[in-house]
Amino acid sequence: MISVVKIGGNIIDDSHALDNFLASLQQFTTPFVVVHGGGKIASKFGQKLGLEPRMAEGRRITDAETLKIVVMTYAGLINKTIVAKLQKHSINAIGLTGADANLITSVKRQVKDIDYGFVGDIARINDDFLESCFSNNIIPVIASITHDGFGNLLNTNADAIAAAIAASIAKKHDVSLFFCFEKQGVLSDPFDDSSTVPILDEFQYSDMLSSDIISKGMKPKLEYAFSAKKSGVQKVVVCHADDIFTLNFGTSVILRGTDE
Amino acid sequence: MISVVKIGGNIIDDSHALDNFLASLQQFTTPFVVVHGGGKIASKFGQKLGLEPRMAEGRRITDAETLKIVVMTYAGLINKTIVAKLQKHSINAIGLTGADANLITSVKRQVKDIDYGFVGDIARINDDFLESCFSNNIIPVIASITHDGFGNLLNTNADAIAAAIAASIAKKHDVSLFFCFEKQGVLSDPFDDSSTVPILDEFQYSDMLSSDIISKGMKPKLEYAFSAKKSGVQKVVVCHADDIFTLNFGTSVILRGTDE
Repeated sequence: MISVVKIGGNIIDDSHALDNFLASLQQFTTPFVVVHGGGKIASKFGQKLGLEPRMAEGRRITDAETLKIVVMTYAGLINKTIVAKLQKHSINAIGLTGADANLITSVKRQVKDIDYGFVGDIARINDDFLESCFSNNIIPVIASITHDGFGNLLNTNADAIAAAIAASIAKKHDVSLFFCFEKQGVLSDPFDDSSTVPILDEFQYSDMLSSDIISKGMKPKLEYAFSAKKSGVQKVVVCHADDIFTLNFGTSVILRGTDE
Repeated sequence: MISVVKIGGNIIDDSHALDNFLASLQQFTTPFVVVHGGGKIASKFGQKLGLEPRMAEGRRITDAETLKIVVMTYAGLINKTIVAKLQKHSINAIGLTGADANLITSVKRQVKDIDYGFVGDIARINDDFLESCFSNNIIPVIASITHDGFGNLLNTNADAIAAAIAASIAKKHDVSLFFCFEKQGVLSDPFDDSSTVPILDEFQYSDMLSSDIISKGMKPKLEYAFSAKKSGVQKVVVCHADDIFTLNFGTSVILRGTDE
């Protein structure tokens, strides 16, 4: 079993919560991969430099200056802070973007209604490199930056990367995919933290979408979750960062549909 | 033969020069390692954020806020820009700091006359990881950040890293170490760019030191150069970034002493 753990939201912004979370990963007895973005820290640095964050449909619009800030914070500050903290716990982590070892190639998103700027949609995962990490007990920590193979870095959704990495590993291994954040799971009422949906299948999801109770940021996450499930990932879980090893009733487990 | 190429100074700050330099690395037919810092870009970002660079004896003083900027620019922006550009030239680069795969462990410098802050002196190189890169045709691109194994990142002189990496590789391989910058070599007159010293041994160096014609930044570089030579590195060269593959009369080759 290989686990892919995506961390986001307030976990990255809260140094104490991040420390606890990273220490908890020592409990893994089989290989794992960490995927992270780092939106709020990037926004904070951008604002100090006079750049206001611009979002559309829950995604960041990335102009050339914003890309620099995103690369600096995601691939620099956050990635290396995580790696150094994991090393302290004797977890032999290696920090990566999609450009490193040609891990994730992407294609710059074409302009339709919205010009997202330097944003990439995933095209290919370098499975061989991931396999060599697993066989050498090296834990990949992936920042949500990819490259197009023509020398350009591209900002890429961290949930999309986690789902694509999990799907890619699922070709050879059993995989669990965890989307970890500061909530207990998917909420049926976005204003009530205790309203978690323990099990979510595509039919329920479709109902929730039509009732407009899925938040802007949660919608792409759940679409990536279902797509990973369809690609053969055994278990997809949306949970609080504290709950990976103690899944409780509030946790949302994603089911593909009625066939499981 | 394995080559270790340290780039610094104006090469990193000049996007066109950097592009040409990285494209030229396609000429290597044997494995190589790139080592870089990125002082001026870090200073520029720091100043935008209200941090003035402070130097002592040619080295940056790194307080907690400066360390963040250094990690963001060296390990983030510069490192990933170099990696993406090398990938464009089909060079399978991987960007690393000393924390990644536990590559370089260092010890925080003790306060004597000067408190350098979060600065590390190299303690150990993970040879096995470098070997695995070489056998998998992966080109390490190392930013001048290390870690202490206790969860802390430390700013570390890029020349020191290049010398230590070269010395470490020299235990098993023939190694050439190139210190590349915007000058033709070591100058006997810091104000005359044509005054390069073609061959420099420890006796000449000692003379130059006592005549006070070695600049503040050049002194540590040359000390690392001589120390690499003593550790068994076959060839140590100080040259212009354009001259690695066409070493000319202006280039400075470092000799250990009169015994070669």
